[in-house]
Amino acid sequence: MSDAPSQVTAPPAPAAPGDSEFDRDTTVRTREAGVHEVRLSPGWAIGKALNGGYLLAVLGRALRQALPHPDPFTITAHYLTATVAGPATIRTDVARSGRTVSTASAGLFQKDADGTEAERIRVLATYGDLDALSDDVRTSARPPAMPPREQCFSATDHPGGDAAVPEMGHRLDLRLDPETCGWALGAPSLRGEMRAWLALADGRDPDPLSLLMAVDALPPTGFDLGLTGWVPTVELTVHVRARPAPGPLRVAITTRNLAGGFLEEDAEIWDSADRLVAQSRQLARA
Amino acid sequence: MSDAPSQVTAPPAPAAPGDSEFDRDTTVRTREAGVHEVRLSPGWAIGKALNGGYLLAVLGRALRQALPHPDPFTITAHYLTATVAGPATIRTDVARSGRTVSTASAGLFQKDADGTEAERIRVLATYGDLDALSDDVRTSARPPAMPPREQCFSATDHPGGDAAVPEMGHRLDLRLDPETCGWALGAPSLRGEMRAWLALADGRDPDPLSLLMAVDALPPTGFDLGLTGWVPTVELTVHVRARPAPGPLRVAITTRNLAGGFLEEDAEIWDSADRLVAQSRQLARA
Repeated sequence: MSDAPSQVTAPPAPAAPGDSEFDRDTTVRTREAGVHEVRLSPGWAIGKALNGGYLLAVLGRALRQALPHPDPFTITAHYLTATVAGPATIRTDVARSGRTVSTASAGLFQKDADGTEAERIRVLATYGDLDALSDDVRTSARPPAMPPREQCFSATDHPGGDAAVPEMGHRLDLRLDPETCGWALGAPSLRGEMRAWLALADGRDPDPLSLLMAVDALPPTGFDLGLTGWVPTVELTVHVRARPAPGPLRVAITTRNLAGGFLEEDAEIWDSADRLVAQSRQLARA
Repeated sequence: MSDAPSQVTAPPAPAAPGDSEFDRDTTVRTREAGVHEVRLSPGWAIGKALNGGYLLAVLGRALRQALPHPDPFTITAHYLTATVAGPATIRTDVARSGRTVSTASAGLFQKDADGTEAERIRVLATYGDLDALSDDVRTSARPPAMPPREQCFSATDHPGGDAAVPEMGHRLDLRLDPETCGWALGAPSLRGEMRAWLALADGRDPDPLSLLMAVDALPPTGFDLGLTGWVPTVELTVHVRARPAPGPLRVAITTRNLAGGFLEEDAEIWDSADRLVAQSRQLARA
């Protein structure tokens, strides 16, 4: 074996946490206590809007810098007005710092065209330390039944070609379960389900902050219910239940109740060790 | 038929919204814009602590007074420190008032023994008008399979007698599904389920505010998992999906994942017209 050919053909090394697209695009600079500056990346857009999960991860990172505990145990975001790429200010307000958990609010603000500051998102979260939790697991939850990654559909299989893939799709290695992508061929299952294997495109492994993005990264379950329009999120709550093991995640989303023009999306995320690492629910407009 | 006997034997007329224990005990006086005074009633205690659902209803009422829309579409509470009966101040902060929905934060504060003010609960909510929603319902959710009320267990059936019934139990007409109260006889099902018929004891019909209480009114699912200790709520999110029809509610709660000392409780509330009127999830400490 010679060195040269393997050097040429070797895939790029996976990005490490701290040195990846996701980390660069969620960088938060704390200007003073409670005031944080960010530059939101256009790389996480779906159509004209930035993805709500990406924005939640940015807010989650600001809260991590404002609180004594590192991990979001439970975080809720209310989306007020559309957030665009570019500069934004996050203001954090600590409600309580306890021994094992701490709680804070945050708001993300951008300047409108006339220079006035408008609040885009308001968040409320409780942080703790996932590594300090006991190893006790007594769960009746089981990972979703899904084909292996190689048998799932990636963005490059999209019948509309690369132009049909939203910008955020290039940040992700997303492989949809064939059973939940009939909608892309005009034949939704009408069960309100969406399942996928999910990793970051540059190979960075998941962590609690990237889970906040991952719960909102799949196509809306509305597509599988035969809805074609956009499904804007009103509110999204994520519980991070364990630190994810390295490797691709499985994300399973279900909608039970579409009524009065609103629907809920319940997501579960499973890591490569078959552990339920996050649960989320969002209320969205159909 | 004579009038006199029927006057003697007639049951008391059911309380109407606005004139019931629940309405009196959630009364909020707005002192100035954004500042509201309440007197929390000891009638909603479970042990020494006031019930988190009752407190959420009080905060929900303050937010209704602070916002242009009447109904909580989605509301999240983080419980910081134990709330006791007596006076409290609620401060509300409106994030955005839109045409169809409006969003605000709120904090509930009480004075500690040394006179300093401590925040007990912080809330984030989006309100709208349930009556303005379309009648469209496309749901795969089905009401829980439960025996009729008469075959369920009420507080008066408690093997420990009336003394074992928490104070809040006297505000409610709660009838537990026999399948989910084996724990009271030392034989929990270990499935993590709790189901009950629920009404207010004085006969007042449910409304969106009382649903905020109802999602947290049953014994914890932890009892059905064989846990015996208290299960304090860290965070509770409620989606009110429709205005409930008059009559008793059915509440079904499940826990899938008890891990690392935390568990989630997912509740669904169904009204007498078989409509899913509320969904909630809470994160609690085991």
